[in-house]
Amino acid sequence: MRKSTLISLVSLVICSCGLVRAEPNIVIIFTDDMGYGDMSCNGHPTLRTPNLDRMATEGQKWTSFYVAACVCTPSRAGLMTGRLPVRSGMCSSKRRVLFPDSKGGLPAKEHTLAEMLKSRGYATGMVGKWHLGHLPQYLPTNNGFDSWYGIPYSNDMDADHERIKEVNATNGRGDHWQNPRSEYWNVPLMEGEKILMRSPDQELLTKTYTERSIEFIRANKQRPFFLYLAHSMPHVPLFRSEKFKNRSTAGIYGDVIEEIDWSVGEVLKTLRDEGIADNTLVLFTSDNGPWTRFKTLGGIAGPLRGGKGSTWEGGMREPTIFWWPGSIKPGIVHDLGSTLDIKATLASLTGAELIEEQRDSYDLSATLLHGAPSPRKEMFFYRGVELFAVRHGSYKLHYSTQSGYKNDRVDYEKPLLYNLDMDPGENYDIADENPEIIADINRIRDAHQATLKPVENQLEKK
Amino acid sequence: MRKSTLISLVSLVICSCGLVRAEPNIVIIFTDDMGYGDMSCNGHPTLRTPNLDRMATEGQKWTSFYVAACVCTPSRAGLMTGRLPVRSGMCSSKRRVLFPDSKGGLPAKEHTLAEMLKSRGYATGMVGKWHLGHLPQYLPTNNGFDSWYGIPYSNDMDADHERIKEVNATNGRGDHWQNPRSEYWNVPLMEGEKILMRSPDQELLTKTYTERSIEFIRANKQRPFFLYLAHSMPHVPLFRSEKFKNRSTAGIYGDVIEEIDWSVGEVLKTLRDEGIADNTLVLFTSDNGPWTRFKTLGGIAGPLRGGKGSTWEGGMREPTIFWWPGSIKPGIVHDLGSTLDIKATLASLTGAELIEEQRDSYDLSATLLHGAPSPRKEMFFYRGVELFAVRHGSYKLHYSTQSGYKNDRVDYEKPLLYNLDMDPGENYDIADENPEIIADINRIRDAHQATLKPVENQLEKK
Repeated sequence: MRKSTLISLVSLVICSCGLVRAEPNIVIIFTDDMGYGDMSCNGHPTLRTPNLDRMATEGQKWTSFYVAACVCTPSRAGLMTGRLPVRSGMCSSKRRVLFPDSKGGLPAKEHTLAEMLKSRGYATGMVGKWHLGHLPQYLPTNNGFDSWYGIPYSNDMDADHERIKEVNATNGRGDHWQNPRSEYWNVPLMEGEKILMRSPDQELLTKTYTERSIEFIRANKQRPFFLYLAHSMPHVPLFRSEKFKNRSTAGIYGDVIEEIDWSVGEVLKTLRDEGIADNTLVLFTSDNGPWTRFKTLGGIAGPLRGGKGSTWEGGMREPTIFWWPGSIKPGIVHDLGSTLDIKATLASLTGAELIEEQRDSYDLSATLLHGAPSPRKEMFFYRGVELFAVRHGSYKLHYSTQSGYKNDRVDYEKPLLYNLDMDPGENYDIADENPEIIADINRIRDAHQATLKPVENQLEKK
Repeated sequence: MRKSTLISLVSLVICSCGLVRAEPNIVIIFTDDMGYGDMSCNGHPTLRTPNLDRMATEGQKWTSFYVAACVCTPSRAGLMTGRLPVRSGMCSSKRRVLFPDSKGGLPAKEHTLAEMLKSRGYATGMVGKWHLGHLPQYLPTNNGFDSWYGIPYSNDMDADHERIKEVNATNGRGDHWQNPRSEYWNVPLMEGEKILMRSPDQELLTKTYTERSIEFIRANKQRPFFLYLAHSMPHVPLFRSEKFKNRSTAGIYGDVIEEIDWSVGEVLKTLRDEGIADNTLVLFTSDNGPWTRFKTLGGIAGPLRGGKGSTWEGGMREPTIFWWPGSIKPGIVHDLGSTLDIKATLASLTGAELIEEQRDSYDLSATLLHGAPSPRKEMFFYRGVELFAVRHGSYKLHYSTQSGYKNDRVDYEKPLLYNLDMDPGENYDIADENPEIIADINRIRDAHQATLKPVENQLEKK
């Protein structure tokens, strides 16, 4: 009897008793700026996402699943650490994300998902966009990942401004977005701590990330592994490989989503082909809402209000599917969940220890595996370091609102209250009729804010 | 060998040759004021519609399926006749629907779906809301239906204004909507041409309609039948039976949708149980978009703009599923379709003749059965008798816009142009960049309008 067979048998026996579960492989597929409404199974009228739709049917689609922040860097910090970015210094109200000239990054004392899983013997691989610090000490391979292939920040950074100015002067304003060419951006493609090249062919990013991910899965299929596949797309500038050009009636954005959908299909197919699907938990979600300032080059939030950069639902509620054939109860979950919860959930599923003192992570495993109610009852909506809104149960209270990228901030003397179950679009303020609910949420806010401690702001670090 | 078995065998042989198909049973389930976003499979984050979701997976979900008008009476006239209501006089810009004091109704010369199918030997039954005239000559049983059980117009008509005034004076404005009681409305429940009672218990409407529909199916399962089940819900006042109270976290509206979903499940289950599912085409759709002026007592249009009463997409694009196991190719169809097309489609599927001179109906059967492109390439958006907008392919041109129930009409010197495939929310006007597309659509409009003839306005008839 092969060792792996024996382990499987033992696991089966243990599982049947409901006590301990064999440590599953973990795959997190994280997209960039994809909106809540950008899956067919979330109601997009045009985009074709058959692989995501199938994943949703076979797995659990969560409809109230939030990221830790409405922009890239702090959102990713929340996923990696299970802690609100305001605790790690990975958010700021001025520079909202890390830039190529930033000196900061994820502090060494933060315990990442990869470090946690590595301590349990997992092979840990990352493919794709990091955006938690590009100086060597901050890179994935210094944060628990055995390997990393990808770009350190967004694909629109390190722009060749002179060239872009020239192109737009010739072809019209915004041409570099409408007809992007990889050479307009000097973003580095890296492997470990080494820069492989500048201005990589961005048309190949989704395809190559997928191939690298499949290689990682095949190379590590004999042991528990953790794969973090963080797509650079559909962040502008939008690129897709030759095969996906003009496939969608929804334009370049549609093509890009169709290639991501293909990528998801390839990953799941690999897991099936290798016979490890029923021992692998896959999470698909996005880092924040759609970048609506880019109009049809951005996605849509479906029925939700607002998009990337804002604390309206469209900025932080994401398209989300958990998949683990045979273990995850198929269905649709309306309960609250967050990328913040992945830490505690994976700790629970793998027997790992949560070592941080202050965490914002709930163990969702009983919901995933047994359909139990989610332990998460509240969500905090930060814009930079400021708490703009709090959700508790069905209700969300906005203390301040602001569009993603406009100077239209409003601080409310009387906050806005919405019942998100009845009013997902945040259209109908019911503050007047519900003073007790407001008082409850105020108390939750106060208790939460009392736990915050001053930390160094990594995003403003010079 | 029984005669029906012989017929089935013959049909099977004929079908295999792809020449003629046995005449299928037809079931149309039509809801009232349900929004595009009000199915879980169209992205509603809270509503639970497992039966519709399953129907969509087994059948074809259409994502660009339009009704003939943005309010009740003209929409239903379009479905029944396959002709734009402006041709039958069933629309008006003043009184937008028929009221209990109206003297008009569907003109006798209009050839209804029921008359067409009756001429092919179909048993024709209707259950639910009619709203095409309540005087005897206009009723369903004088328009091709063998039987009818339901209400002649909307469930908020024949209001007892005195009583409602009193209730609201005591309990607060709008209490009759928030806490409706059947006795506030004197709407009649009818069977054929007979009024069974006034102010029927509206809590039982969905349930009773469902039971009556199932009875009709069982009674007619040996011959081709046409069942038109036109739910009164989720039109306000909202009512649901005891079993569905407080089931949904989305409030009364959610409960009502869950009961409709249950009803759909019961109808499909009956077809399966009786062994006639694979010889029955079922269409599920709604008469117009959500009545957003009722806030959380109305539905949502999901990613679409506007709602009931407007010619924005949310007013006329509907949640739509076709189901016919074994015949309809499962999938999602992005091509255009309309309730106007049901007439020609059913004529094609049943061998019936289209006798009207001017029709607005395309045969969708090749799309349904073989995945062919839809023959419908354009859609006309009327508000009353005025053409507000035209869609052609991906593009929609608005000559005028107005909210469903506000006096905010704008007539554009330069019309608004949207690419609906790339911009389903009609957010990004691209008129400036596309003069040729505008010229094309103007030509389509002119050609269409040249076909219109003056008709008697049935809605203003005194």
